[in-house]
Amino acid sequence: MTTTVPALSVADKNASFENTTIERRDLRPDDVRIDIQYVGICHSDIHTARNEWGGTRYPVVPGHEIIGTVAAVGDEVSQHQVGDIVGVGCFVDSCMECEACKDGEEQFCSMGVVQTYNSREPDGERTNGGYSTQIVVRDHFVLKIPDGVDLAATTPLLCAGITTFAPMQRAGIGPGTKVAVVGMGGLGHVAVKIAAAMGAEVTVLSRTDAKQDDGRSFGASNYHATQDGSVFKELAGSFDFILNTVGASVGLDDYLGLLGRGGRMVNVGAPGEPQEFGMFSLLTNRREYVGSMVGGLPQTQEMLDFCAEHGITATIELIDADQVDEYYDKVVEGKVRYRAVIDVSTIGSAD
Amino acid sequence: MTTTVPALSVADKNASFENTTIERRDLRPDDVRIDIQYVGICHSDIHTARNEWGGTRYPVVPGHEIIGTVAAVGDEVSQHQVGDIVGVGCFVDSCMECEACKDGEEQFCSMGVVQTYNSREPDGERTNGGYSTQIVVRDHFVLKIPDGVDLAATTPLLCAGITTFAPMQRAGIGPGTKVAVVGMGGLGHVAVKIAAAMGAEVTVLSRTDAKQDDGRSFGASNYHATQDGSVFKELAGSFDFILNTVGASVGLDDYLGLLGRGGRMVNVGAPGEPQEFGMFSLLTNRREYVGSMVGGLPQTQEMLDFCAEHGITATIELIDADQVDEYYDKVVEGKVRYRAVIDVSTIGSAD
Repeated sequence: MTTTVPALSVADKNASFENTTIERRDLRPDDVRIDIQYVGICHSDIHTARNEWGGTRYPVVPGHEIIGTVAAVGDEVSQHQVGDIVGVGCFVDSCMECEACKDGEEQFCSMGVVQTYNSREPDGERTNGGYSTQIVVRDHFVLKIPDGVDLAATTPLLCAGITTFAPMQRAGIGPGTKVAVVGMGGLGHVAVKIAAAMGAEVTVLSRTDAKQDDGRSFGASNYHATQDGSVFKELAGSFDFILNTVGASVGLDDYLGLLGRGGRMVNVGAPGEPQEFGMFSLLTNRREYVGSMVGGLPQTQEMLDFCAEHGITATIELIDADQVDEYYDKVVEGKVRYRAVIDVSTIGSAD
Repeated sequence: MTTTVPALSVADKNASFENTTIERRDLRPDDVRIDIQYVGICHSDIHTARNEWGGTRYPVVPGHEIIGTVAAVGDEVSQHQVGDIVGVGCFVDSCMECEACKDGEEQFCSMGVVQTYNSREPDGERTNGGYSTQIVVRDHFVLKIPDGVDLAATTPLLCAGITTFAPMQRAGIGPGTKVAVVGMGGLGHVAVKIAAAMGAEVTVLSRTDAKQDDGRSFGASNYHATQDGSVFKELAGSFDFILNTVGASVGLDDYLGLLGRGGRMVNVGAPGEPQEFGMFSLLTNRREYVGSMVGGLPQTQEMLDFCAEHGITATIELIDADQVDEYYDKVVEGKVRYRAVIDVSTIGSAD
């Protein structure tokens, strides 16, 4: 009663990826079967594959930046048709009845959202992500990919795009807003493009000058290396909004000090260790320190449409299935320019 | 060229208050001379008198919750007249030209606001606060006390009122908002009254049950003792807004966990030690942790008018000048119900 499909999985936290097969369920009335074309490598995939956040159940098939073609739909599906190009992001089901779900913020579902991988469906089945040739997803959680976009380079928007778009849209970033993006990796480089398209004056704060030319080509007006620390004095109080995309801990007092009156710093990364700061960093200029976690389905669709309209895609390296281990190391070392995307047609063909 | 007036000062961090005299300047064209009737004891006075924040210059005359009668005005003063009942809060001058000043947030003046005591005027003169029979203040920094209010009990609003009103007004607290007030001391008890008057459903989170009856009489619908910790599980995710009025460190993850989706916790206290929390406390429910520091002149006037309209005053103990040392200890021990106000007519009479 299921379909067996090729996938890439890891068997434990120290293992390499291997070709395997997984089962995808038969279509329920509200399901969409998707032949996957591209899947992005997000740092969360690595944290999970290597059990760095704890809680990984092996074997695990990561991948929550997914684009493909609709292969079949259940009887009650009206929003998607066979042949449509669609996307799937970080989650694939939720209760649809709680206040968060009704408000289109399914990621905060009070019953717990079902994540695209390493999670459990309501019936107890384990979820497997997009490092796989096919996936079956409840229709509400399937997004429409606008016509004419570069599919491979649009794939990372399903996580990196919505993660950075959501807090900026919520804060009303636009012309006149001074935005700093901390870290210019997979998330940060997309954030620069989106903030610039929103009309903000964008500054990149990166550890070194190495990515300066890229930062400016992505739309940043200013670029500062933070490694010698002088920038924290020079730019104190000068930003309205700071998006911190760095997954590791940063000096919070340094960065909060860059905010002007009523300024907001948003964290989208999740360092595991306790965070420390001095209270006067918040009291001065009545600063705001805020968390944000991807975004719900309506906002994700809005982000995809916004990016298509503004010609925004991720800047990617398209790789084959047998390069995933190598690229995991490159992501961790910050050597990918700027997001790796797996050509799913190469999965399963190497055995 | 100055006027000598009685005052209460401390000579060093371990000293008791003593009767002394200080000089008040002759009126400049935009000055208002005020005969002080009442001055509140704020915990900041104690931090300063005892040099707990560092930077105290002795001898110091504290006091930044001041109400009195206009005794004289400079030639260019048009907003205040002799005989008016007026108030002075936490600061007495600013540049009036920077963006913050123009926006009526003088507390964040880019040149540095001149605080009511332990600060320096632009001409270098030390400022002395309201534990004194008279003060001379630039007209812009003098507030109108609405007719018919209880003057002694209104006095603490000049700091405790605006400190708690400002972040709640900014957040749009009103009917339907679930507000928790953490700590029910000088600030917290006023916060409960203001939040209730704004129409919010107010919950007090206090260490023990000791203040439960008072909390409900101030307008709280709910009251929980936090000391056994069970409340953090029971009420997880249930508040829209938390006002933390406690000056000492609290378990941030516990309190942030009480916020629902998009909820905001505002700190108005200033613990000296580094604050620690886990990033998932902010990421989950996209929570906001925010600082707030008193409020500017326009908002302070608005707060005074709001409180007069809603019959809100502080709940006070009116004391004489010779009780100040005793009440400093009582404030620190949390034994004042709920703010001590000095009857200024008793200053200087004991020598």
